[in-house]
Amino acid sequence: MDSDKSGEATKINIQEPKAETKGKGIIAGALAPVIVAAKAARRPRKGWKKGAAILDLVLRLSAIVAGFAATSLMGTTDQTLPFFTQFFQFHAEYNDLPTFLFFVIANAIASGYLVLSLPFSIVCIIRSHASGPRLLLIILDSVMMGLTTSAASASAAIVYLAHNGNSSANWNAFCQQFGNFCQQVSSAVVASLIAATLLLSLVVVSAFALRKMK
Amino acid sequence: MDSDKSGEATKINIQEPKAETKGKGIIAGALAPVIVAAKAARRPRKGWKKGAAILDLVLRLSAIVAGFAATSLMGTTDQTLPFFTQFFQFHAEYNDLPTFLFFVIANAIASGYLVLSLPFSIVCIIRSHASGPRLLLIILDSVMMGLTTSAASASAAIVYLAHNGNSSANWNAFCQQFGNFCQQVSSAVVASLIAATLLLSLVVVSAFALRKMK
Repeated sequence: MDSDKSGEATKINIQEPKAETKGKGIIAGALAPVIVAAKAARRPRKGWKKGAAILDLVLRLSAIVAGFAATSLMGTTDQTLPFFTQFFQFHAEYNDLPTFLFFVIANAIASGYLVLSLPFSIVCIIRSHASGPRLLLIILDSVMMGLTTSAASASAAIVYLAHNGNSSANWNAFCQQFGNFCQQVSSAVVASLIAATLLLSLVVVSAFALRKMK
Repeated sequence: MDSDKSGEATKINIQEPKAETKGKGIIAGALAPVIVAAKAARRPRKGWKKGAAILDLVLRLSAIVAGFAATSLMGTTDQTLPFFTQFFQFHAEYNDLPTFLFFVIANAIASGYLVLSLPFSIVCIIRSHASGPRLLLIILDSVMMGLTTSAASASAAIVYLAHNGNSSANWNAFCQQFGNFCQQVSSAVVASLIAATLLLSLVVVSAFALRKMK
């Protein structure tokens, strides 16, 4: 855009930035070039932020998948052995062990939170300079990371015992008998660990994005 | 940038800086009051940042105390019962259970990291506008929070079993016999959970501080 005033008056010749022209209307006076320059300098940073916001959404969707997989895998563990005595039927379910019950509840909460956080993540893509939703997300993501990590590692400790037992404490491994049960529980623990790792990367991405918001 | 003075009138010909160049030209006259105003507005924000950096240091020191308490409490658990049979002496130590060994290692790593991070925290107090060390701290703090949380909750799951046992898995509680052992291990778990909570608050404080760095 060229505005050209010749004669005795001031002549200002401003070339408009290409790509998403943001300078609407006439910007007058001595400040105009400075404003335009500031806008131009901000553009690559904005692209970076948008990229971070999109990465955030992708990681969040993956974490939702992992979280729901963990919850449903653990929540459906149920194995009955084909033999039984007169008084007792051999049956294993996730809520036989309080740690596994905690696992299901914690992963359900984390997955629910992740679904509810999707709109905020989308807001961060659209308004990539807004640091408010980003801050909210980083704090809640950290809390949920703690919750998921604790659920996953508590269950991992129990699964380890179920596989190997412990001779000092006289706790026997029961995975020889309840093979399917153990396998499903182990998969759930792995899924939950993946969800925890994704939440950790969400925190890291948000930290980088917050830093670039200057 | 072209500046062209022809005739009696001033003719300013400004070409847009292309992206990277941040407009380092001469800002004269009319802009000066704007810059001063911006600096004035930034002053309370700087105070806020310094406050956050000091809070960071205090929380970090508390987390170091909690981390070392957890490590040493767990690392020194050792109980021998006053009675023994011909072949067996009843003895409980932290490394009888692999989870407790992991607990000691993880908490030692976290405490070591926290000590090494102190200089960075002090740098954040002195140069409170530097976002580099702050970013490094928030990322490493999150990772260490994950490590401490996983150690604490895995051990909590085992301590729960030691206290209550589990009838479905036929695992017996041994805390009636090894009372002191269980008490010390439980204290270690509590100390580690406190360290994990302090690390979480460190992440939150850093997130707030990063946001205010504009």
